[in-house]
Amino acid sequence: VAAVATAIHHADGNITEAQQFDDPASGQFFMRVEFSVVAAATARAALESQLVPVTRSLNAAWTLREANALRRVLILVSKQDHCLADLLYRTRIGELRMNIVGIISNHPLPSLAAIGAGDIPFHQLPVCRETRSQQEVQIRSTIERTDAELVVLARYMQILSPEFAQSLVGRCINIHHSFLPGFKGAKPYHQAHERGVKVIGATAHYVTGDLDEGPIIEQDIVHVSHADSPEALSRKGRDVERQVLSRAVNYHLQDRVLLNGHRTVVFRP
Amino acid sequence: VAAVATAIHHADGNITEAQQFDDPASGQFFMRVEFSVVAAATARAALESQLVPVTRSLNAAWTLREANALRRVLILVSKQDHCLADLLYRTRIGELRMNIVGIISNHPLPSLAAIGAGDIPFHQLPVCRETRSQQEVQIRSTIERTDAELVVLARYMQILSPEFAQSLVGRCINIHHSFLPGFKGAKPYHQAHERGVKVIGATAHYVTGDLDEGPIIEQDIVHVSHADSPEALSRKGRDVERQVLSRAVNYHLQDRVLLNGHRTVVFRP
Amino acid sequence: VAAVATAIHHADGNITEAQQFDDPASGQFFMRVEFSVVAAATARAALESQLVPVTRSLNAAWTLREANALRRVLILVSKQDHCLADLLYRTRIGELRMNIVGIISNHPLPSLAAIGAGDIPFHQLPVCRETRSQQEVQIRSTIERTDAELVVLARYMQILSPEFAQSLVGRCINIHHSFLPGFKGAKPYHQAHERGVKVIGATAHYVTGDLDEGPIIEQDIVHVSHADSPEALSRKGRDVERQVLSRAVNYHLQDRVLLNGHRTVVFRP
Amino acid sequence: VAAVATAIHHADGNITEAQQFDDPASGQFFMRVEFSVVAAATARAALESQLVPVTRSLNAAWTLREANALRRVLILVSKQDHCLADLLYRTRIGELRMNIVGIISNHPLPSLAAIGAGDIPFHQLPVCRETRSQQEVQIRSTIERTDAELVVLARYMQILSPEFAQSLVGRCINIHHSFLPGFKGAKPYHQAHERGVKVIGATAHYVTGDLDEGPIIEQDIVHVSHADSPEALSRKGRDVERQVLSRAVNYHLQDRVLLNGHRTVVFRP
Repeated sequence: VAAVATAIHHADGNITEAQQFDDPASGQFFMRVEFSVVAAATARAALESQLVPVTRSLNAAWTLREANALRRVLILVSKQDHCLADLLYRTRIGELRMNIVGIISNHPLPSLAAIGAGDIPFHQLPVCRETRSQQEVQIRSTIERTDAELVVLARYMQILSPEFAQSLVGRCINIHHSFLPGFKGAKPYHQAHERGVKVIGATAHYVTGDLDEGPIIEQDIVHVSHADSPEALSRKGRDVERQVLSRAVNYHLQDRVLLNGHRTVVFRP
Repeated sequence: VAAVATAIHHADGNITEAQQFDDPASGQFFMRVEFSVVAAATARAALESQLVPVTRSLNAAWTLREANALRRVLILVSKQDHCLADLLYRTRIGELRMNIVGIISNHPLPSLAAIGAGDIPFHQLPVCRETRSQQEVQIRSTIERTDAELVVLARYMQILSPEFAQSLVGRCINIHHSFLPGFKGAKPYHQAHERGVKVIGATAHYVTGDLDEGPIIEQDIVHVSHADSPEALSRKGRDVERQVLSRAVNYHLQDRVLLNGHRTVVFRP
Repeated sequence: VAAVATAIHHADGNITEAQQFDDPASGQFFMRVEFSVVAAATARAALESQLVPVTRSLNAAWTLREANALRRVLILVSKQDHCLADLLYRTRIGELRMNIVGIISNHPLPSLAAIGAGDIPFHQLPVCRETRSQQEVQIRSTIERTDAELVVLARYMQILSPEFAQSLVGRCINIHHSFLPGFKGAKPYHQAHERGVKVIGATAHYVTGDLDEGPIIEQDIVHVSHADSPEALSRKGRDVERQVLSRAVNYHLQDRVLLNGHRTVVFRP
Repeated sequence: VAAVATAIHHADGNITEAQQFDDPASGQFFMRVEFSVVAAATARAALESQLVPVTRSLNAAWTLREANALRRVLILVSKQDHCLADLLYRTRIGELRMNIVGIISNHPLPSLAAIGAGDIPFHQLPVCRETRSQQEVQIRSTIERTDAELVVLARYMQILSPEFAQSLVGRCINIHHSFLPGFKGAKPYHQAHERGVKVIGATAHYVTGDLDEGPIIEQDIVHVSHADSPEALSRKGRDVERQVLSRAVNYHLQDRVLLNGHRTVVFRP
């Protein structure tokens, strides 16, 4: 902390918001420092020259990023467009500071214009069991070609291969429904209805080899009742899914999420 | 609905709050009618004489209860007293309309006076693997002797035998912690911490043969963060546990919970 | 209750969900009955012939509506389109069962296509202090011409004349931000920031002569912190505004909201 | 930040959790650093000798406190004991790290034993309009005699004189109910019922000369419905009051709350 703060001070930086956390479980130390400088270009050079030796001696990983720069984001989606629509809207009004460089779906998406996709390139990449690996190659190449820094699985109902998932560690966010108690398998909202749950939830997490088990970024729930049919549960689930995903993406875009093994540190404002 | 409303009308009753629900999944119809009468005793006789033939012809189960009558409740608890303390407090200030006829614990409870147990009979019934069935006999006999209408497992950390649980169907409420995703086994708060969850919850449910899987009455959650140690999770868990249990007990005491197979219908106000 | 239930029974109707509430404060009795019938047309005639004399003798107001029929809705909006976008999206995916017959704004709305307004007629009706009453005439005539059953003020930042508001009683829903404590006057989010509040909220209510003081349908809040700038408060406020408005509109469309003087009875599912 | 972190580093301290915030509105910078040391006594001396010159040159106010030390707290209460009972319970189980040095009420409190007040000195200091200033002298002297570091108004329904309130700035926490919209005057829950609100809330704040208008520490709400009588609102209000007060007191005890003019900075974990 001292070394970093000193480096920022020497570069005429002014700390605006910062958080530090020492995890007793992992023995790792986490820090996020938001600061303003007068001249970004010169400050970056000055900072880097000081941070490199400091962080090397501490064996610390670090990133220095301009807060105003729009991150390049690729969104994958299947048939349901509620999460995509929400991400598009929040991006358009400037709430999510990102540049959506492409939308990929394994289905046609007739709603694209109505949800404001505008001129964003759309790639329909159909997939069946036999073509899974070829389709994945196409996705990979789209990620590379668009130079996407973040991939968002906005209700993308296909499983990524472990190798592909592994290659995206820390830069691919998925959303899935969550329940108390948990339900595995198909038609989770029907299972939840049958079990008579009183809350349903959603979990946004980083993708790892184990698709739905990556480090959790954000979770929330909504209350439901006996009168909610499976369709009503699904509708309420959509609401909480899109909110949780948008919040998680926003935290990521603001570099508030740090990986801590199988967990995350989320420095909320 | 027509027959019941007519019967109440003929008994000079005045409906104050009522709800009906037709469950398409189970094909069952549920109704709760709260009404006031001028003379309770005569109204009861008049109502019963009309409801008996009506409900018989419909093959409907029904109960007629005086809203002001205090229900007799037996509370079982182990070492942790946060749920018990909350139930005692809410009962004392008249929020939970019940008469606590006894407290059973498998441990000594030195805090009894400090949490306001006052003159409520306390039964310490220790248990180990070998004495489980004998201790259960003691519990059963306490239930019978006290004429308890409801048994509340307020963090009672012992498993009931399937036969005993079965004998309490619809009149025994349990509270347990719940997580997204779910964790089985010991030390759930440590598991939740290790998994890095962002919400922890609690579930109140009726006890059936399958202890933690009975019909759910109420659920809620609390948000947590990476900075919460397993102890902090456990502390926040206590808070949500006692709230959820108190709400579930209150719904039961007001006859707002109707069993619907493995689910419940909860007619909330 | 008895008479209505009997009438439904005679018309071969099957009650699916119903609620009754007797308000001791106003002395009014409220009832909502959802039921299915085999032949809607004949059932309606049969029901009406029975309900007319019954309700006349009880001096009761009543409405009989087909649940599947789309209600005709006119939306008024100013510059901010977050509530409009949410209503359009939820209508498109079938969550809000309504037919949006027009959108009126006192400003141009360049985002209309991007938020999915599609072919919905858009009426730009600019207004300044001098032209207020003429513009109101235009709005009134649009309501009449489109045969709108419900008017939604989705962040419409103009004050309606008391006479106009009065003419829309019970069929015009407004959304406004709400704070603890409340703030009067301009720039409420700046005031809330200055006051250092920890929650901000939104209230959806029926419009009456007193614009922001009509019967409340739905309210909710979102937690904020010292780190939230007035802009961040405003952004979080948008989120809760659109959720609260959508829920209120949905309750209205499902005839779950009954006026009770200055209050509402909301029979939530 | 650099100077403080360097000082901690030189004193062999290990930062466990820290947060910084630069408020653009007030131009003030806030910092909270939690750290562990091997030898507390020597570390304190070493730290102070380094922090004194640094903070003097920055014109910064600072406090250095041992996290494990129990803070001395005096609780004031009137008739309603729900907040007091909650504070006592959480203190007893070690959740609130404080030493309750006394309880003052202007009424007799027959429930003291039942809510676990145990041996805590109780001072009944009745008050009427004529004796207000004398009673305040007694309270002041009790604060001094008990060396109380924090005064908690746990539903103390008397107004403090501006001078007294002023003397407690930053070390006296009050709880009061809050509503959307706000209601002034007596019987707020009746007013809220009459207005038909759908949420009721509570606000915990530092006391200043203007009793209910001091810097807000914590706020929360609970959802209510048309079926909630004024008594039910009041009961639900009690629940949210005690939770909000306990959270605010806990934040204060952990030195997470920093005064920022009329606002607070709350560094939540």
